[in-house]
Amino acid sequence: MVIKVGVVGYGTIGKRVADAVLLQPDMELVGVTINSYNYRMSSAARAGIRLFALSSAASFPVPIAGTFKDLLAACDVIVDCSPKPQGLKNKEQYYLPAGVKVIYQGGEKAPVGQASFTAQCNYEQCVGLDHVRVVSCNTTGLARTIGAIDARWGVASAHVTLIRRAADPWDSHKGPINAIVPELRLPSHHGPDLQTILPHIPIMTSAVIVPTTVMHLHTINLRLRNIPTREEAIAYLGGTQRLLLVKGSEGLVSTAEIMDMARDSGAKRGDLMEVAIWEEGINVVGDELFFHQAVHQESDVVPENIDAIRAVMGSMSAQESMALTNKTLGIYAGKQTTTVVQKAMLTK
Amino acid sequence: MVIKVGVVGYGTIGKRVADAVLLQPDMELVGVTINSYNYRMSSAARAGIRLFALSSAASFPVPIAGTFKDLLAACDVIVDCSPKPQGLKNKEQYYLPAGVKVIYQGGEKAPVGQASFTAQCNYEQCVGLDHVRVVSCNTTGLARTIGAIDARWGVASAHVTLIRRAADPWDSHKGPINAIVPELRLPSHHGPDLQTILPHIPIMTSAVIVPTTVMHLHTINLRLRNIPTREEAIAYLGGTQRLLLVKGSEGLVSTAEIMDMARDSGAKRGDLMEVAIWEEGINVVGDELFFHQAVHQESDVVPENIDAIRAVMGSMSAQESMALTNKTLGIYAGKQTTTVVQKAMLTK
Amino acid sequence: MVIKVGVVGYGTIGKRVADAVLLQPDMELVGVTINSYNYRMSSAARAGIRLFALSSAASFPVPIAGTFKDLLAACDVIVDCSPKPQGLKNKEQYYLPAGVKVIYQGGEKAPVGQASFTAQCNYEQCVGLDHVRVVSCNTTGLARTIGAIDARWGVASAHVTLIRRAADPWDSHKGPINAIVPELRLPSHHGPDLQTILPHIPIMTSAVIVPTTVMHLHTINLRLRNIPTREEAIAYLGGTQRLLLVKGSEGLVSTAEIMDMARDSGAKRGDLMEVAIWEEGINVVGDELFFHQAVHQESDVVPENIDAIRAVMGSMSAQESMALTNKTLGIYAGKQTTTVVQKAMLTK
Amino acid sequence: MVIKVGVVGYGTIGKRVADAVLLQPDMELVGVTINSYNYRMSSAARAGIRLFALSSAASFPVPIAGTFKDLLAACDVIVDCSPKPQGLKNKEQYYLPAGVKVIYQGGEKAPVGQASFTAQCNYEQCVGLDHVRVVSCNTTGLARTIGAIDARWGVASAHVTLIRRAADPWDSHKGPINAIVPELRLPSHHGPDLQTILPHIPIMTSAVIVPTTVMHLHTINLRLRNIPTREEAIAYLGGTQRLLLVKGSEGLVSTAEIMDMARDSGAKRGDLMEVAIWEEGINVVGDELFFHQAVHQESDVVPENIDAIRAVMGSMSAQESMALTNKTLGIYAGKQTTTVVQKAMLTK
Repeated sequence: MVIKVGVVGYGTIGKRVADAVLLQPDMELVGVTINSYNYRMSSAARAGIRLFALSSAASFPVPIAGTFKDLLAACDVIVDCSPKPQGLKNKEQYYLPAGVKVIYQGGEKAPVGQASFTAQCNYEQCVGLDHVRVVSCNTTGLARTIGAIDARWGVASAHVTLIRRAADPWDSHKGPINAIVPELRLPSHHGPDLQTILPHIPIMTSAVIVPTTVMHLHTINLRLRNIPTREEAIAYLGGTQRLLLVKGSEGLVSTAEIMDMARDSGAKRGDLMEVAIWEEGINVVGDELFFHQAVHQESDVVPENIDAIRAVMGSMSAQESMALTNKTLGIYAGKQTTTVVQKAMLTK
Repeated sequence: MVIKVGVVGYGTIGKRVADAVLLQPDMELVGVTINSYNYRMSSAARAGIRLFALSSAASFPVPIAGTFKDLLAACDVIVDCSPKPQGLKNKEQYYLPAGVKVIYQGGEKAPVGQASFTAQCNYEQCVGLDHVRVVSCNTTGLARTIGAIDARWGVASAHVTLIRRAADPWDSHKGPINAIVPELRLPSHHGPDLQTILPHIPIMTSAVIVPTTVMHLHTINLRLRNIPTREEAIAYLGGTQRLLLVKGSEGLVSTAEIMDMARDSGAKRGDLMEVAIWEEGINVVGDELFFHQAVHQESDVVPENIDAIRAVMGSMSAQESMALTNKTLGIYAGKQTTTVVQKAMLTK
Repeated sequence: MVIKVGVVGYGTIGKRVADAVLLQPDMELVGVTINSYNYRMSSAARAGIRLFALSSAASFPVPIAGTFKDLLAACDVIVDCSPKPQGLKNKEQYYLPAGVKVIYQGGEKAPVGQASFTAQCNYEQCVGLDHVRVVSCNTTGLARTIGAIDARWGVASAHVTLIRRAADPWDSHKGPINAIVPELRLPSHHGPDLQTILPHIPIMTSAVIVPTTVMHLHTINLRLRNIPTREEAIAYLGGTQRLLLVKGSEGLVSTAEIMDMARDSGAKRGDLMEVAIWEEGINVVGDELFFHQAVHQESDVVPENIDAIRAVMGSMSAQESMALTNKTLGIYAGKQTTTVVQKAMLTK
Repeated sequence: MVIKVGVVGYGTIGKRVADAVLLQPDMELVGVTINSYNYRMSSAARAGIRLFALSSAASFPVPIAGTFKDLLAACDVIVDCSPKPQGLKNKEQYYLPAGVKVIYQGGEKAPVGQASFTAQCNYEQCVGLDHVRVVSCNTTGLARTIGAIDARWGVASAHVTLIRRAADPWDSHKGPINAIVPELRLPSHHGPDLQTILPHIPIMTSAVIVPTTVMHLHTINLRLRNIPTREEAIAYLGGTQRLLLVKGSEGLVSTAEIMDMARDSGAKRGDLMEVAIWEEGINVVGDELFFHQAVHQESDVVPENIDAIRAVMGSMSAQESMALTNKTLGIYAGKQTTTVVQKAMLTK
């Protein structure tokens, strides 16, 4: 059986999820929605992706395959990539009446879904649910690393400073151009969001916004229950799927070179779906583990969306889905079996 | 016969030329040089590209296929992508003794080559030469559009302001962060450089450097001998190969969205080898034609290097080479035959 | 007689105009308006400036001297520094009924005033008027230099590319962070705006917005009726009031160092009210004069507002007013008498 | 007795220290050094500051008052503001032979001085010494707040993430333009540097560099021995000299608006010598105190240099010197007596 998938909202995340669905042997992309006409819609049309009009009143210079309701009727799963808080509005107005399963994005508030989702942490919890929320790019990045370390050594508490890119590369409107903007709320919203995935870990997050477009960077400090050596920490993180150790000594001294490396890899759009961790920055001091990681905000949630589709359909196990997603999207699949991590997560 | 090509200098341009050579049915990439080890070399090694050590003394964590001299001995054509002015030094010390044909980049001064090169303007002039210089990204962009317009309507004089990106996307060292830096020399070096391709056109260029990494932008003002309507200018530029009309009305309001569109296209690294011209910005006022164009500094010279290889080998006509390069690299091939442009250029 | 002045809108321009009024021996600052409370109002209150509430409903943590109508009733002249298009709304709703004279800013459309104003160009035209618009920072900068050159040698036509700072230094919201945004309309709005001051000069302007906060930069190309030598052009511009020749050879290689020099001068807020022209960039080629100038967008219109106040009151001649404004604000007063320029302007 | 002071190195810090010396009733600025001629020297000459040539061979377009040795001979104290590591070289080659007392800057390594210095923390330790190093802008900012909190409640351990501005506002060369650059060494050099002032506090610092020029921002997490309420922490920090509570609710939402507020204050160059702390960001959670602070890298060490001059001369007590420095430079002098802080510091 092939899972019929529709994408609602064809922006930064939506267009990437649509492309990723096209690469899955067990999925069919029914189509994506079109709201206003722009270069993204033009590219989609050229690529042969079917477009469904959100509003029936509008007319477009590209062929339209049907209405929004037509799309809902033809799909098993909708991936909602609307700008927040449109996802919740769509749920109430369209998705619940249509009885379709839906994956939401992390911009929506947690209650939009029956559960929040990060594949490596809680895939099993979401099997068979109807409404699941993939957490945001920042939270996904933190859930992957903190979840993996917690599964292996136990995390007693976490302190994270998020240095956030202020806008996406395509965005010519948002600033700041020359300022650092702190989030004055403490913890920033990332801490509580991460606890929707890892509820047992006390976590304090501070966040600032800086004038760059390419990646978020997190400085992470974890108090551990069991203490690895620095070498053990490096080996473990280096062997975990969807993480990527990088070295300053190989010229990867900033987020800029990391994205250039991703472009060299041939990934579509130069995306990097793994979380990048600087090997030289991993350190153990007393009972504390420190490291810096960088998150490509445009793409790290794409594999999570693909896995979440399979989770709500109950069509594969966590390991099978992640392995297939990794393979089809060219993501690092890790050395140690994910079973260990999953088991550790599930027994907590 | 297959042309054996080596790439010296594996940076921003070198790695793209190497990838482009790999896509040509009539070329073989013998290998590229390695100087210091970094992520670029690591990517090349993973891709199976053979590495030749510039210095025999160094040792690297990747297999080395031979020395620099081995590379020279095995190649018909070298594409030198060294940082300026290393190309000239290499010519004297290595290339002339080795008797190899060489394509240089626009960072080198013009006399390094027997001629400067832009495929649409003067391919034929370079047929059979041994040392040819592809002009810089900015000059290539200007030569394509001004050359095409001159061929059609005659350019009496040109005034250009170049708003230059200060650093490439991977560069985490160069600034400025918050300043506009004018080039105080007038004309900027771009005017005389463009005249190595279009010697019969008086051109005045002013240049400033601005804090962005994604594209150069040129504001262009041409005094014409024969005056088209605005619609004729749009139709002609829109039908010319290696140019791409874009519309602000489709959301392409800055260099940022243009590069995002290029990423959507699936081009490796999200490159845009065409020169982008905003349709809404094309205007004819009296005898003057005005337009804005944007140049992707990392990639617009790549097809020129490929064509230059065939020119020095004398293996194809201009039209054949450009058509094959366009097809293999996914570049817009235009509507009108290039013959018109070429003939017009050659009869001047 | 002392001119009683009120400032409506206490933002980037308003706070500077208020401070400048405080320095004039022939003016009294009645007060400024307060709309929402922020650090600017806090600074004004600490400085003893009286605050008049735009809305009577609001309450503020600082003493309020009265209502908006109280302010209008107490003033001879209002300087309206509201964000566009609030000036026009204020005119119709408040200023015309109150019968007060008003100076507007360049963000408003030209018809808001009976005339547009740049002191060096057309002070006399505005003497005794009731509603006068000081043109924008960019237009003021262009009017000063192009007007002065036209008065001396005659400008047959002008071509200008404006490279505009995208946001002010205090602005943490506006972008772009990493893009160049062309204005696709041609001419950009600056050309027609400049012609409200210099109606007899054909002028074509192109504009782009770049990610910097400190200054606008203009590349200027003037076709002249009479041709000076380069040395004559340098001497004349260097001797003209409200212009400032700067040298790249003294480390002033970008807009950043120019603003640092202004900070060194001790000017309040590090402002630079003169237009800065790079001496090395001034060139004469054939009948064309080329130069680069930089405009401090936050402050170059401040002396114009002060002069405009005296013009509408008819209290001084152009030369007297400019001389007094220059002296009180620490602005370069020039070497040649302004009479020459003024006379030349008026006889056209 | 008036202290005769010379400034060696007239850059970002040197020119500010020279101006601050000019404002002290108990000091005389003998002069500053000139190395190469640029706009800074031109401003100094216009301001009547005497210039001493570092090299006797050079000639300058401004009057020279003497040689470097003349300057040393005429001064009681030199403030060395040379780029690192020139201070250490000057010490060995010039200062030790001349027998002059010297204040160094934080770019030099700690051993250049007999002690490192932050006025509020350890003025008394430096009384009468000959070679004292004022710590860097970041370390000064951290020493002020962490030292004050430690004196009041005891700091058991500190974790700090420094988000550093990449270049100063005048700098048109340094980048990055669009990247976040982590310092991969852990702790970053700031932790050990802070321990030269506060040796009894365990401190872990992580640092990243971001593309902005205006201020550093620190996210701070202190584990306390005695726990204040949030209100007590706000009241204490708000009453401490050389700190400044700011409110996001008054529009001070980023480093950009804070610097704009400083410009409004009339401080020369728009400098902010206090450390700014966001009131809304101060929080107490369990035994941990969290806050964000911003440091104006160009000026926060200026008052420290002035106090250090008096310390090495032994001419005033800490409280007397800080009070005089605060008054002459317009720095917030605090509500609680500094005696408490000083005593607490000295009894540790």
